[in-house]
Amino acid sequence: MKKLPSVGIVGATGAVGVQLIKCLEVRGFPLSSLRLFASARSAGKRLPFRGQDLIVEELGSRSFEGLDIALFSAGGSTSREYIPIAAKAGTVSIDNSSAFRMTDGVPLIVPEVNPQALGPDDKIIANPNCSTIIALVPLWPIHQRLSISRVVVSTYQAASGAGAAGMAELEHSTRAHLAGEAFAPQVFPHSYAFNVFSHNSKVDIEDGDNEEEAKMLKETRKIFSAPGFRISATCVRVPVMRAHCESLHVECEKPVDLEEVRGILSNAPGVRIVDDRAGNKFPMPVEASGQDDILVGRLRMDTTDPTNRSFWMFVSGDQLLKGAALNAVQIAELLLQK
Amino acid sequence: MKKLPSVGIVGATGAVGVQLIKCLEVRGFPLSSLRLFASARSAGKRLPFRGQDLIVEELGSRSFEGLDIALFSAGGSTSREYIPIAAKAGTVSIDNSSAFRMTDGVPLIVPEVNPQALGPDDKIIANPNCSTIIALVPLWPIHQRLSISRVVVSTYQAASGAGAAGMAELEHSTRAHLAGEAFAPQVFPHSYAFNVFSHNSKVDIEDGDNEEEAKMLKETRKIFSAPGFRISATCVRVPVMRAHCESLHVECEKPVDLEEVRGILSNAPGVRIVDDRAGNKFPMPVEASGQDDILVGRLRMDTTDPTNRSFWMFVSGDQLLKGAALNAVQIAELLLQK
Repeated sequence: MKKLPSVGIVGATGAVGVQLIKCLEVRGFPLSSLRLFASARSAGKRLPFRGQDLIVEELGSRSFEGLDIALFSAGGSTSREYIPIAAKAGTVSIDNSSAFRMTDGVPLIVPEVNPQALGPDDKIIANPNCSTIIALVPLWPIHQRLSISRVVVSTYQAASGAGAAGMAELEHSTRAHLAGEAFAPQVFPHSYAFNVFSHNSKVDIEDGDNEEEAKMLKETRKIFSAPGFRISATCVRVPVMRAHCESLHVECEKPVDLEEVRGILSNAPGVRIVDDRAGNKFPMPVEASGQDDILVGRLRMDTTDPTNRSFWMFVSGDQLLKGAALNAVQIAELLLQK
Repeated sequence: MKKLPSVGIVGATGAVGVQLIKCLEVRGFPLSSLRLFASARSAGKRLPFRGQDLIVEELGSRSFEGLDIALFSAGGSTSREYIPIAAKAGTVSIDNSSAFRMTDGVPLIVPEVNPQALGPDDKIIANPNCSTIIALVPLWPIHQRLSISRVVVSTYQAASGAGAAGMAELEHSTRAHLAGEAFAPQVFPHSYAFNVFSHNSKVDIEDGDNEEEAKMLKETRKIFSAPGFRISATCVRVPVMRAHCESLHVECEKPVDLEEVRGILSNAPGVRIVDDRAGNKFPMPVEASGQDDILVGRLRMDTTDPTNRSFWMFVSGDQLLKGAALNAVQIAELLLQK
């Protein structure tokens, strides 16, 4: 693309959509025009971008004419319906839904991990799931150098994974609880105030994994181009607004020198080490919120492993930024470079 | 003990103390008299027991005269000062602090696990740490039958581990946050409202484990009488009031049949299975609160383990009950049986 691209955001009024607009602005993304799309219900709303108010248009089959790049964040069914239409119109779609992630021939990209998977003629590019991205940004440089043999993950996931409505439900249920009032959850299957519950995605009746856990496994294997990679997760919601945490127990093929791990992470793109043992200061969602970097800490050996091959880390990343909007905009930047 | 014992509670006005009184009442614990002790600040308060108001006495070195059993829950320094005095007076102390847990000759008891460790002449009996008890009640029957080779634990711990003041701080910080007001944490080192942070116990500068994690390892090895047992933990606070959750990845020495695990847990004392895949209903702290049983669910194989030796479970238990007061009262019941 020699001239500046025209860009569209599909699902512009959602929690991720709003962050997509912000990311394009904050990063000075080079574009000739930005158009915002949403459902009829949100059409006509105005959202600010670079000092102007943009009017949200209703998404339709002719929305993609003249559009170079479309950033989709309006759910799987919208992606399945409109991304093939966009592709026919010559628009490159970067999709935040899970619709095409596992489709053969669709690259699934974390720019810090597998930028080479993006081909010059790709019309559909998938953005991985939030909890996958947040784990892989620190895991990949370690895997490259130390050959990870197994990862065991437990997540502490924020409300924002269920969008603006999820965040509002956490706030409203907490207010009701503190006021001693009843609250009927609508977005989540369980009461969220001062509670923890297993991730609200569908559970596979046969193997017992929920979809969030299955995504972590399948997406990691695709992104790492490692079909046998072992990463097993338990995904859990905690009453936090918009940054996920993950507790990662990592086993490598050979004995690990923790200082080497620290060195690798110090130089890893997209990673910031927060690991103050004396001050008991480690990654926290309130500090990861609004940050581009994945915060990484609690780096320590599993002293019970007699082979010295296992260590722990605890990470926190903004679910709406690196877990969604930022990663999509970074993919768009990669597209411009190619 | 042929006649009914006289019982005292040291730290009766604290979060655990209040639950100790309730447990004695609810379980119809056979006693001739109950006396309540606390610091001078709380002396004179009245607390209900079996329809009467008991007056809290100031703890002193002569408090133990004529007392058969003392339930201590007033912190490590009080235990270290007064338990030797109680022992000299012939009182058996059941201590909820960590002061004597690792002392040689002091039994550390989870009644469902190692009742045989309680000897007839023991004057000091230690109650394990909350997160240890909650993990071991379901792990022990599995270990007995299937020989566990390794456990990787990530915890989701409630405010109540820091007592009534901790629970109040979670509530007040959340109210302040929702009102848009500043709040300076005093009990915890970090802001608790809608946040997650690494456990607030001291971090070992050398190995990086915090004290909560070190307790899980050392106490499990003592309770299981298994000096090489492998259990490695990451302990984390979540904004929940009084029940802990733990995500447990369990590896056994031989291939695991998940139905066998389910069968073992179905018959395990102190365990209730909550494992509804179709309804996405699993153990939650709001449901574990106020319950004696440890709720256990998310039972599923780690499908990435080619040897079929690894499975997951997610547990939730009331930190104040089985994690503290209930376990202490069960130890006292065991004492009466012996």
